[in-house]
Amino acid sequence: MPGGVHPAEGAIDDRHNDDDSGAAGKRDARRPRTMTSTAEIDSTIIHPGSVRINVKGAFIVDTPEQPGTPANVSPSGGAAYYETKDIRLPNHTAVISHIAVDIGGSLAKLVYFSREPHSTEPGGRLNFLSFETDRVDDCIEFMRHLKDNQLALNGSTPGELCVMATGGGSYKFYDRIRERLGVDVLREDEMECLIIGLDFFITEIPREVFTYSETDPMHFATPRADIYPYMLVNIGSGVSMLKVSGPRTYERVGGTSLGGGTLWGILSLLTPAESFDEMLDMAAHGDNAKVDMLVGDIYGTDYGRIGLKSTTIASSFGKVFRMKREAEREAEEMGGLSNGDEQNRRRQQNSSSPTAAATTTTSSSQTQPSRPTSSRASEFARSRFSSADISRSLLYAISNNIGQIAYLQSQVHGLSRIYFGGSFIRGHPQTMNTLSYAIKFWSKGEKQAYFLRHEGYLGAVGAFLKHQPRNWGRRGSFEQGTATGPGRGQGQGQGVSDGNGNADAGAANSR
Amino acid sequence: MPGGVHPAEGAIDDRHNDDDSGAAGKRDARRPRTMTSTAEIDSTIIHPGSVRINVKGAFIVDTPEQPGTPANVSPSGGAAYYETKDIRLPNHTAVISHIAVDIGGSLAKLVYFSREPHSTEPGGRLNFLSFETDRVDDCIEFMRHLKDNQLALNGSTPGELCVMATGGGSYKFYDRIRERLGVDVLREDEMECLIIGLDFFITEIPREVFTYSETDPMHFATPRADIYPYMLVNIGSGVSMLKVSGPRTYERVGGTSLGGGTLWGILSLLTPAESFDEMLDMAAHGDNAKVDMLVGDIYGTDYGRIGLKSTTIASSFGKVFRMKREAEREAEEMGGLSNGDEQNRRRQQNSSSPTAAATTTTSSSQTQPSRPTSSRASEFARSRFSSADISRSLLYAISNNIGQIAYLQSQVHGLSRIYFGGSFIRGHPQTMNTLSYAIKFWSKGEKQAYFLRHEGYLGAVGAFLKHQPRNWGRRGSFEQGTATGPGRGQGQGQGVSDGNGNADAGAANSR
Repeated sequence: MPGGVHPAEGAIDDRHNDDDSGAAGKRDARRPRTMTSTAEIDSTIIHPGSVRINVKGAFIVDTPEQPGTPANVSPSGGAAYYETKDIRLPNHTAVISHIAVDIGGSLAKLVYFSREPHSTEPGGRLNFLSFETDRVDDCIEFMRHLKDNQLALNGSTPGELCVMATGGGSYKFYDRIRERLGVDVLREDEMECLIIGLDFFITEIPREVFTYSETDPMHFATPRADIYPYMLVNIGSGVSMLKVSGPRTYERVGGTSLGGGTLWGILSLLTPAESFDEMLDMAAHGDNAKVDMLVGDIYGTDYGRIGLKSTTIASSFGKVFRMKREAEREAEEMGGLSNGDEQNRRRQQNSSSPTAAATTTTSSSQTQPSRPTSSRASEFARSRFSSADISRSLLYAISNNIGQIAYLQSQVHGLSRIYFGGSFIRGHPQTMNTLSYAIKFWSKGEKQAYFLRHEGYLGAVGAFLKHQPRNWGRRGSFEQGTATGPGRGQGQGQGVSDGNGNADAGAANSR
Repeated sequence: MPGGVHPAEGAIDDRHNDDDSGAAGKRDARRPRTMTSTAEIDSTIIHPGSVRINVKGAFIVDTPEQPGTPANVSPSGGAAYYETKDIRLPNHTAVISHIAVDIGGSLAKLVYFSREPHSTEPGGRLNFLSFETDRVDDCIEFMRHLKDNQLALNGSTPGELCVMATGGGSYKFYDRIRERLGVDVLREDEMECLIIGLDFFITEIPREVFTYSETDPMHFATPRADIYPYMLVNIGSGVSMLKVSGPRTYERVGGTSLGGGTLWGILSLLTPAESFDEMLDMAAHGDNAKVDMLVGDIYGTDYGRIGLKSTTIASSFGKVFRMKREAEREAEEMGGLSNGDEQNRRRQQNSSSPTAAATTTTSSSQTQPSRPTSSRASEFARSRFSSADISRSLLYAISNNIGQIAYLQSQVHGLSRIYFGGSFIRGHPQTMNTLSYAIKFWSKGEKQAYFLRHEGYLGAVGAFLKHQPRNWGRRGSFEQGTATGPGRGQGQGQGVSDGNGNADAGAANSR
């Protein structure tokens, strides 16, 4: 398969031969994030929910890279991205027989468990991997290899693999996945998976949830027993906002079409960036004030009477149209933009093709008007704005907008904790700063934005956890828990509101 | 002054030698909008407020053009736009000695009264004119000519002209306006002017306020006595949202930087459009589904469980990044985009410059990689999307977004009537349809969007009305009114919350 991704044992093993326990994250040097104290873990794992993975001692395995930056380890150069933040489950030794995929509009996110065959330690880890949805075939191929390799890696028997799928692509590509893998695919509701995944991260994984501020960019939240109600803002291609009142009790209260897809789409038209991360890198170096119209640009000063500072963004991209017109007028005054443009084009042509240039003369009988031709005008306009400035402006605009709508929805629905998930964020400091600031600004400091280190994988993890395979269990790690005892049977989802638990059980029985 | 606008008597007289009374608007053929029954006027003018223009019998003078489309009558070809919708005040005969300008981030809006010297009828009309803020000098020059001409037109003595200014530009260009005109400039708060202007339009001008639906695109609202509380959403370069609880009692509750400036700015980078109206024309013919990612694109069907239809926009511009990547891959498979691109460029060059082309050969020693160079990739991407589709997508995105935020703010503040003003709307059916739909959708039909035929001039009219010159008055036209009698003195603003009324009086006295 040209350009495909092959999860050969070697590739996976390579990732597992380091234990990373000594590497402290660069951005949080005071606290090495790879080590977690037993006390911390014990205080974190207080809400087992209905999940029966043995998460005792679970911790996030960091590489020393910037948190949230996906590492590209795929051989095809761009199709698949491994997250650097695997979750190690040192005490889970049971057989793992399923994988979960969340196929969204832009990205397919995959979660699977792997033993560490060459390690002498027990346990294993949850792996997080994403593909562009456009290359969903690569994702399916990867899953097929996982299936083939599962015996060697996990000790389960072939054919036992169960594939959980969620997101729109679980419908759109349902037949294709079943055919290629030759196994049943269990579909789960996207929104429900999001909150199951989020509940898991909030309650079970230490050092997962954090607040952001410029002075303390990753301040881990103290786990708490009363997590409800809260709001989840999931930012993928589009944005969904969910009010969550209890375990698996939720309502989609709103959303906006101005999300990640909008940023990626417009920037791929306006800048040379070819990946999301390139766009974020550019945004990090840009100055939005060169593109945005600030209050100071309109007033020449603050608009103090209603509390708007001169640096407040009055209109995103609001300087562009004016500057374009200005430039055109200047060009007209200098003898016509068309001519100048034509000369430029010829000059470029000259340098690349001197022979041709020698025979080119400027036509003096041009009948063109002095106004620029249309397509040249927009080209000309684009050339006046830097990709970095444009990227930053749009990133601000979209993040601010989501922040404001999130605040307003939280206000309408009486929610004070707002979790931001989804692949739009990607651990990017400016994005988190803007979202945090928006929530703080609009709520006058009364509400708080929370982020997650596995922000893009809520749905995939939710789907992963929703199916409860045989032989999984916490095996005594939650004796002190009150919500779920070890006696709870398989398939008895806690507060499942929609009958999917039954569907799971049915599917498991039919094999 | 090259490119300037000269309000020569001839130009103004040309506009005033038709009385238009027989011309019915095309879009509302059932009701000729230029005639207004006395009963209607009497029922409309029930809230005189503190304004003392004689508005008895006031009506909007229509040309038979599409309502809301500005007519360009300026000699400079693009710098100034006359509105087609003057308001005729048939019973106001007093001397008019002031003009008002609202200078925003993108547009400067001018309102002035003119007698009709060559007409045998009494009265006169309010004229509405806009300039690009970039060409504020043209606006100032126009005002200077108005000043010079005021004796002939209005019968006032030179030097009596009073200039009211609002908007950010009234600060930024304050000194310039004073110097050029040689008169005092009274500055008024932008937000306050907006609501004074809106109150005037709501209560005093028949057939001004309307609701929009596709089957009844201009359904005039029945005037009502209890107009408060309401929300004003003013969409200029940026967006301001005001809660208005009573006459001149208001609070700016929010806003968004995603407004008209964003639409104009991004579209001027992505399309050849050179004016706002060209952009709207393009949007009218586009198909956003070619650019936006719909729910159906992700699910292959509806997402019925949470009530999202397959045609719902999941992600604005959400198809762009995927299609760009797809196209690049296709191009790579066909032997490399760079080469194809290069060949295209040469082909174009050939057709425009055959002599040069004959000597151009394809270099076979090219060492370029087969991936497209960055700037070519974005050019290539742009060429795959039509300007019309892009325009429609962005118009939808911004209108929808404003609609949603407006609904949420109205919900938080308990307001059920939402007026949309500002130059973004320009009477454009799709814009109004989107805003109306958003309010209806989110409020489940409980709230209503209202529009105005002079939507862009709320601030300018508010500034115009805020100063109450000598010799103005309703002269008995409001005997039945309860709020204001003819005995109210000059400068006694009704419920003015900020002392600007006093500032007016002081400035008037100092002349």
